[in-house]
Amino acid sequence: VSAIAERAFGTDTRDGLATLGQEATQLLARLDGIFTGWARAAGAVEVTLPALLPVAELERLEVYRNFPHLALVATTLDPPALAPDAGRSGELPADALNPARLGMPSAVCYGMYLALAGQVLPDDVVLTSAGTCYRNEDHYDGLRRLRAFRMREVVALGDPEHTLAHLERFTALNHDLADQLGIPMTVQPANDPFFDPDGPQARWQRMVPVKNEFVTDDLAIASVNNHSTFFGERCGIRAGGTGAPISTSCAAFGLERWASVLFTRYEGDWGAALDAVLRVEPVRSAATDGRSSG
Amino acid sequence: VSAIAERAFGTDTRDGLATLGQEATQLLARLDGIFTGWARAAGAVEVTLPALLPVAELERLEVYRNFPHLALVATTLDPPALAPDAGRSGELPADALNPARLGMPSAVCYGMYLALAGQVLPDDVVLTSAGTCYRNEDHYDGLRRLRAFRMREVVALGDPEHTLAHLERFTALNHDLADQLGIPMTVQPANDPFFDPDGPQARWQRMVPVKNEFVTDDLAIASVNNHSTFFGERCGIRAGGTGAPISTSCAAFGLERWASVLFTRYEGDWGAALDAVLRVEPVRSAATDGRSSG
Repeated sequence: VSAIAERAFGTDTRDGLATLGQEATQLLARLDGIFTGWARAAGAVEVTLPALLPVAELERLEVYRNFPHLALVATTLDPPALAPDAGRSGELPADALNPARLGMPSAVCYGMYLALAGQVLPDDVVLTSAGTCYRNEDHYDGLRRLRAFRMREVVALGDPEHTLAHLERFTALNHDLADQLGIPMTVQPANDPFFDPDGPQARWQRMVPVKNEFVTDDLAIASVNNHSTFFGERCGIRAGGTGAPISTSCAAFGLERWASVLFTRYEGDWGAALDAVLRVEPVRSAATDGRSSG
Repeated sequence: VSAIAERAFGTDTRDGLATLGQEATQLLARLDGIFTGWARAAGAVEVTLPALLPVAELERLEVYRNFPHLALVATTLDPPALAPDAGRSGELPADALNPARLGMPSAVCYGMYLALAGQVLPDDVVLTSAGTCYRNEDHYDGLRRLRAFRMREVVALGDPEHTLAHLERFTALNHDLADQLGIPMTVQPANDPFFDPDGPQARWQRMVPVKNEFVTDDLAIASVNNHSTFFGERCGIRAGGTGAPISTSCAAFGLERWASVLFTRYEGDWGAALDAVLRVEPVRSAATDGRSSG
């Protein structure tokens, strides 16, 4: 019986949207469990963030100014404007759509900064959450590049020492996991699609590397990002002592991308890939000793 | 440090969208683990379904004909049509939106039937998946009624004996869990919002109860649904022997609704609610002995 369902549910990524069978589904859950274990060991608080974010708040984060072409938004229908066979052609016309008040997140951590907007944080914190992210790309490529994908993020908020130590810690953990899984991985400075390539943030980014991607087989499967005080300023999140905008940094893991790399590494055998991640030691002391900011 | 983050991340359900702190997040995960354990014990295959579904396929399931007012759709922007401060007012105007080609699921199981469209199933199967569902309601009410919420579904596909035994099994499991958690629960026949209240399916439903809701504190926290051959016919999913459309049935669990009921039951103490679900025996034999269809 399981074999029948497994055959019916092979991996399908048509239209940039993933359908996965049991072993791939369990592999994603296990990978997320490994990253969550790292987050817990770093003292992270696990939170749930809204699945959609208000357009007005995303505008404050410059999303629609900096990359409107990548954005997906959610909206409702105007029933009287719908034809009886509306949708049959493959689309619902724009004149049957209401104005869009909610955006679909392109990264998990935005929801954290927006949830903390206007607050004072009396001490350094680490937060973690996983969620579905959406990007309107000009092409999709299997599990390597999807329209909707799962991302786990671990975010540090507080003073710059805390946020930098966070990135060192997760850089070491990434290398350790890649070693355990036999994945050759290089670290490459990258441009954050968050920032306007012509804006002052991007110019600063080219001087000081603030985004490092962990790349294997020409695919970034994780990244560490130092936002400095960008989100602290935009969202008015202030440090308890000085009242100054806090710094933030995040480690981000693309779950389907890790799965894709493992699928290739284990020559198309989801079961072997799953077995490999089930054997991973979640946190090996060598990767974190002396690197944690506590 | 955790206390700071926990205070910053109290439950927030503004605009029908949930932000949850650590204990509530872990409670949802644990509840999902219990339902997944039931699914595994019933021989279910765990699958991942697309986060968005093509409008043309949802049209085939009569979504836009039967309840266009409840639907949310996803679309992209037409950057040249966006004002420089687009979104600041709280909305992006419809004339800056492209036609919508993707719908946001209002239930998890649609993605299963669409993934199996046109296939022959040589034997009975059970599938399970969790996902975020979206409904455009005329009002929202804390965790009891959300615009975006998490649902776990366990779906039986095959002959009518199999799909009916599935509902009996999950009815017993629901009662067992409510007993363990001290939640008084009644079973009430209900109308499935899937079907047009004036259509032939709805008239048939009023004669034969095909949806039972598990209700506590005036809130349906779970339901069992017998779809007969509706999805088998619409999606062309056929039985191996006869070639006839298969029957389907599903058990659905609203994770935030269960959490809401437990929050009330434990007098606003997420930690106590979490402890209670951590003590649950996932599958007690009395609830399933002699009821499983194997």
